[in-house]
Amino acid sequence: MADTRSSERRRDALAEFVAIPSISSDPARADAMREAAAWVAAQLAFANGRVVESAGHPVVLGERIVLPGGPTVLIYGHYDVQPAGDERAWETPPFEPSIRDGRLYGRGATDDKGPVVVALEAGRANETVNLRFLVEGEEEVGSPSLPSFLGEHRHELAADLVVSADGAMWRAGEPSVAIAAKGLLGLDLVVDGPASDLHSGRHGGAVPNPNHSLAAIVASLHDADGRVAVPGFYDDVTELSTHDRDALARISFDADAYRRETGVLALDGEAGYSTLEHLWTRPTLEVNELRGGGPFTVIPSRATAHITCRLVPEQDPQRVFACIATHVEAVAHAAVRVSAEQQPGAVPAYAIPSDHPAVQAALSALHTVYADREPLLVRIGGTLPAAVLFERHLGLKTLLFSFSTADENLHAPNEFFRLERLDEGVAAWGELLRLLGG
Amino acid sequence: MADTRSSERRRDALAEFVAIPSISSDPARADAMREAAAWVAAQLAFANGRVVESAGHPVVLGERIVLPGGPTVLIYGHYDVQPAGDERAWETPPFEPSIRDGRLYGRGATDDKGPVVVALEAGRANETVNLRFLVEGEEEVGSPSLPSFLGEHRHELAADLVVSADGAMWRAGEPSVAIAAKGLLGLDLVVDGPASDLHSGRHGGAVPNPNHSLAAIVASLHDADGRVAVPGFYDDVTELSTHDRDALARISFDADAYRRETGVLALDGEAGYSTLEHLWTRPTLEVNELRGGGPFTVIPSRATAHITCRLVPEQDPQRVFACIATHVEAVAHAAVRVSAEQQPGAVPAYAIPSDHPAVQAALSALHTVYADREPLLVRIGGTLPAAVLFERHLGLKTLLFSFSTADENLHAPNEFFRLERLDEGVAAWGELLRLLGG
Repeated sequence: MADTRSSERRRDALAEFVAIPSISSDPARADAMREAAAWVAAQLAFANGRVVESAGHPVVLGERIVLPGGPTVLIYGHYDVQPAGDERAWETPPFEPSIRDGRLYGRGATDDKGPVVVALEAGRANETVNLRFLVEGEEEVGSPSLPSFLGEHRHELAADLVVSADGAMWRAGEPSVAIAAKGLLGLDLVVDGPASDLHSGRHGGAVPNPNHSLAAIVASLHDADGRVAVPGFYDDVTELSTHDRDALARISFDADAYRRETGVLALDGEAGYSTLEHLWTRPTLEVNELRGGGPFTVIPSRATAHITCRLVPEQDPQRVFACIATHVEAVAHAAVRVSAEQQPGAVPAYAIPSDHPAVQAALSALHTVYADREPLLVRIGGTLPAAVLFERHLGLKTLLFSFSTADENLHAPNEFFRLERLDEGVAAWGELLRLLGG
Repeated sequence: MADTRSSERRRDALAEFVAIPSISSDPARADAMREAAAWVAAQLAFANGRVVESAGHPVVLGERIVLPGGPTVLIYGHYDVQPAGDERAWETPPFEPSIRDGRLYGRGATDDKGPVVVALEAGRANETVNLRFLVEGEEEVGSPSLPSFLGEHRHELAADLVVSADGAMWRAGEPSVAIAAKGLLGLDLVVDGPASDLHSGRHGGAVPNPNHSLAAIVASLHDADGRVAVPGFYDDVTELSTHDRDALARISFDADAYRRETGVLALDGEAGYSTLEHLWTRPTLEVNELRGGGPFTVIPSRATAHITCRLVPEQDPQRVFACIATHVEAVAHAAVRVSAEQQPGAVPAYAIPSDHPAVQAALSALHTVYADREPLLVRIGGTLPAAVLFERHLGLKTLLFSFSTADENLHAPNEFFRLERLDEGVAAWGELLRLLGG
């Protein structure tokens, strides 16, 4: 599929890129952020690659116009990575790329440096479609500067379609194209009781305990059938069509193997839906954090919960937040003060129709490379803010065409990228760009 | 009531004692613990004071037999203190005693060093009753070595009654004798879901979330009327007699002032009981801590709660724990693993009959010092393990006769002791010892 020299060059490029500790959330890594941006710009020398300032970390732009007036693709990726987390949990240091069993280990290897190398390599070889590039440095912190950047640079970004190197494939053995990602709404619940922490022996039984009130509120958020019990939560949710349910049912999914992988006694979720339907098509409300008091004899002054909802198309994050806030107020114990605060950065769901020409081109490109396997149309339970921003600010649909795989320890210790995906990815991207130029 | 020189000596003694950072829970303070024990032993020179080793921190013993074969009182107190906590919350450093407005500020000033100085001073002046002394260094860590120490030294501790310098009076303006303290049962709930923390976008809605299960369990522990909803919890609880209810109703208690002091919107508690009945006579179940996950998009692997119950006489901590464990298992979501673990150190409630001669002597002694105020019989919502241990291991009742007051910031920043209570306390203890000598 690729000669040995190309494979080695790609692998070396990825190792160089992963060795740069470009952690966007760490102010102490500002130099590494600049170094990573400069590295991408240098790789984009064939496309006039350049580092452009934004309100936050710099953005790398590039363009290569091969057919003036012809179709143009904007390629998206990001050069920033998550923090390494607990370094003791890594088998090799997170920023010293290490190859074992055909996998390159290191922070950012699969999110998103491996897929970005694929896109850069494919772009260099392309002669059939006009390309523009946007590789940002704030994806892991919610892309706060991207909206204004898109507005200010919209002429440099004019295109017909975005192809994203971000957004993982579902499973390693099954080529897939993701056609939907859920939206995100984050909020915090705060329950305030006594003015200060009180001794639970001296005051217990007479002073309202915020831990109790918070638990009652959290318990009221789901019913016994696993449905979100917040009135109005499902109001704008479109039920899956029979066609979509049938399509999902045809995808092989071993729920019991998934249960064993996650290590739970039983899977959960709304009655009447399959596990894959839960994961891909149903909105969720998850309490990510409970916190109140300590392991001593106290009635805490405050208890808090952090909640995120994953939303499906048609659900408006503001409206969902309003439903939750109203519900919380209605069920809260009268003796405590309760507030619900929305976090910044809510994002609606993203979807591209399965019959969109770009999706069809992607399926066809995957089929060329993985001739023995039928590519699947899948959905993502996570959120892809950039795709929503491209639609909102540039009016462009985004095709998700990452060669990352969901099992490659994204955001976790021992992140890795399967090296064979470098060559497979470049081949598939080459075919995709050829078809999009067509 | 006391000459100026006595008052000054008592104040200076208390300042010396408070300056010793005898934090029993801090291994780095072992030297200070020994220094505090030696300080107490030196004060007890009149009673052959001596530092005696125990399995943990040393105990100070002493005795002064003035009437061989006559009645003997064992005086109890403790020389250890709580950690200072957040030192920024202190107006003056916790171990640099500072006198302001007639109060001595410093960690341990009221719990229990001020009351111990009172007892030592009264003991020195006593000529009417045989005295023994036991001042321990582990009260703030649950007195783990005290049971075996009492067994090993029971001959040196032979007495007819214990009088405790620990256990605060109810309110500064109202002399009172506490005739009951609640028992303590501590337990932890652990809810385990997935084998590791999972991304709540990728897995939400399909994998059971321990935060949700924990909240449902905690919410099931009380009903809407504020009662503990654990079957069997109240089985052994004796309802207050009409006589006791009437006695409590005669005690002036401004529930609204208490509400304002604690800073809550409304008081809480079981329907059908007054606030004072809640605080003093009803068993409680308080969730001191909720903890699970973090402020990011995670389904945590584990969520935990720390719970303490305060028990009333007749309630057996083991039996109450068994009721809670059975209830938790019954209500837990089937998809998660739930365990309830009892903490060591459960203590039953303590009570002394209100017509016990020692209680009557205490009331009389208080009346002598505070001639214009009728002393009250009160109860304590907290727990006094030492009183339970003296009953269990020495067969002795304990009279609680502390000159600490509950508002003096016990276990909190800016702990203080009202200095006028030194002289008042010595006078009252002197009268009490005279009466006990009969």
